[in-house]
Amino acid sequence: MSSRSLHLQAPDASVLRARLGRAKEAAAGTGLLIAPGSDLRYLIGQAGGSFERLTTLVIPADGDPALVVPKLEAPGYADVPTDELGIEILTWVDGDDPYAVAAARLRGSERVAVSDFTPALHVLALRAALPGVDQVLAGPIVRELRMRKDAAEIEALREAGAAIDRVHARVGEWLRAGRTEAEVGADIAAAIVEEGHERADFVIVGSGPNGASPHHDVSDRVIEPGDVVVVDIGGPIAAGYFSDSTRTYSVGEPRESGVLATYAVLQEAQQAAVDAVRPGVNAESIDHAARRVIAAAGFGELFIHRTGHGIGLDVHEEPYIVSGNELILEPGMAFSVEPGIYSDGRWGARIEDIVVVTDTGVESFNQRPHTLTIV
Amino acid sequence: MSSRSLHLQAPDASVLRARLGRAKEAAAGTGLLIAPGSDLRYLIGQAGGSFERLTTLVIPADGDPALVVPKLEAPGYADVPTDELGIEILTWVDGDDPYAVAAARLRGSERVAVSDFTPALHVLALRAALPGVDQVLAGPIVRELRMRKDAAEIEALREAGAAIDRVHARVGEWLRAGRTEAEVGADIAAAIVEEGHERADFVIVGSGPNGASPHHDVSDRVIEPGDVVVVDIGGPIAAGYFSDSTRTYSVGEPRESGVLATYAVLQEAQQAAVDAVRPGVNAESIDHAARRVIAAAGFGELFIHRTGHGIGLDVHEEPYIVSGNELILEPGMAFSVEPGIYSDGRWGARIEDIVVVTDTGVESFNQRPHTLTIV
Repeated sequence: MSSRSLHLQAPDASVLRARLGRAKEAAAGTGLLIAPGSDLRYLIGQAGGSFERLTTLVIPADGDPALVVPKLEAPGYADVPTDELGIEILTWVDGDDPYAVAAARLRGSERVAVSDFTPALHVLALRAALPGVDQVLAGPIVRELRMRKDAAEIEALREAGAAIDRVHARVGEWLRAGRTEAEVGADIAAAIVEEGHERADFVIVGSGPNGASPHHDVSDRVIEPGDVVVVDIGGPIAAGYFSDSTRTYSVGEPRESGVLATYAVLQEAQQAAVDAVRPGVNAESIDHAARRVIAAAGFGELFIHRTGHGIGLDVHEEPYIVSGNELILEPGMAFSVEPGIYSDGRWGARIEDIVVVTDTGVESFNQRPHTLTIV
Repeated sequence: MSSRSLHLQAPDASVLRARLGRAKEAAAGTGLLIAPGSDLRYLIGQAGGSFERLTTLVIPADGDPALVVPKLEAPGYADVPTDELGIEILTWVDGDDPYAVAAARLRGSERVAVSDFTPALHVLALRAALPGVDQVLAGPIVRELRMRKDAAEIEALREAGAAIDRVHARVGEWLRAGRTEAEVGADIAAAIVEEGHERADFVIVGSGPNGASPHHDVSDRVIEPGDVVVVDIGGPIAAGYFSDSTRTYSVGEPRESGVLATYAVLQEAQQAAVDAVRPGVNAESIDHAARRVIAAAGFGELFIHRTGHGIGLDVHEEPYIVSGNELILEPGMAFSVEPGIYSDGRWGARIEDIVVVTDTGVESFNQRPHTLTIV
């Protein structure tokens, strides 16, 4: 046996009911199969757990939805307001064919969409159980809903942003020469929970040359005087919404030459990108706004990733703030703005805020100073 | 940005090299695409992290393997002995088509297998990038390797078993009337780490009626005198191998009638199943051995799940100890033996040990007493 915590804050049944209705509408005749994870949490208030046994929410184009779930995992869904949502629970036991049960609810569909993080194990079995049916991804359908946050979701992201700001405000308590990144990271992880998160989802403490690796986590490197240190941290609050904020610190005056001038470019680039956010512009224009500033200063080759990612029940979701994404931004879309400059083998810096598009412009959920903070 | 800890104990390059060779041999002409997760950790010593960007280990039927990885995540694989393993690293950046890169390494394959937990997002894109190629699951191929543990793997499972035994030995410190399941669970979770695990992966404290739900985790129910309490706990040690052990406790003398007699049946059933383990018998015979005892006592309807699951780098893996599985057990196969009896709305009990098939019989990795422990 194994299990995970399934019981966290969920929206009211009326909110979930409206989401299910909009999902069916957005699916436009395509049947949906939603696996455990954030899509499921968005639709029924419970993420469930994905193991080797099939759990899937079946939303047929016609007829009521059904949750196909192993009998022994069904009690984990007791808090889901299935009656108010019109969801039938279809339990199965070892030896049954759960794929046939799911397929039967989709009889007559010409197209069936599986949620993006459904394991291949189930994707291929569902394909076999639905011969002749076109199998596509549910992501493009569900993200149309999920990337437009409602007021409660925005409030949750605001709360998450304030919680991670409180952690950044305390980084000076732990970050100092002589300690390892891992030691500092452990203190930060504890503070992430203390300040109101369910858990620490990620803690990057990239000191000195490690700061030049954007996806570094922590290491046993001992922090030295003069190190520039990238601290990128976040986690979900009880409502399931994530924080994600990066600030860059310096342990005393920076040792490497050129740090202050380069950092000033980064700060200007991040601000230019935030200032570019408003309804009606496209996603890539925000990336371009940051990249233009960095390239003009001659550091274009050192900004090696996209400018941001959407955030909500997942730490990475639509909309992606990347060259090529012509999606028009609308009020309620929330994402990170996080340009970085990475000098391979020497140091790196990144500034990251989560912002939301408002009716008239932008609101940032992170309020800590953008300057290089000397600790 | 976000990241997760990627650096844990890995086997020697020579061990990994042999595993890669066996994987190619077992694939018998089928190309393999291995996503981040335990399959990847088994083959290259690093689980990686699976996000929306494609990371996949490509093992062509002919030619050397390649790791396709986003450039900014590549530093996370620095500890992989790629030279000794003959693995080429193929990085990509946002805007590239990583699916085409992976597909190009598999040119000429008629069949390509994707690992079982590859997200649908990548499964469908890889299918599109390999038109006319038969897409199958890699699970049946990789599990042929993974379910036969070598000496180092068995030693790791032994170590994990001893660690979780030390936690069970301390349960009496925390389990008492007046505390909630969640409070007891938090103490147990901390002890799981203290006693040598990387983290607590699952903590089930099912008291009174909650014990009748096999996948219950913890709740705010206050434990009462006379409650029977199922405690099912585990997590991975640094080498990545899991513990998973259940013992059933009673807070003082059990309140419900019939507990002791029913529990005696369960204990006999669990022992009968363990005693049935040896090379040459099939997996379902172990399930039948437990079920026969419970059914003969008239409780057959109350044993609502399979008898066990394989364990290793995943907490649930092959071989499954379930009716219908005619797999012949061989030395090195490790799995749980965990029958349970669940009296709906009243109480439940389960006894779980991890065992390994030896050359002549069975070794159990869990040594705590099987009796109902009164605390």
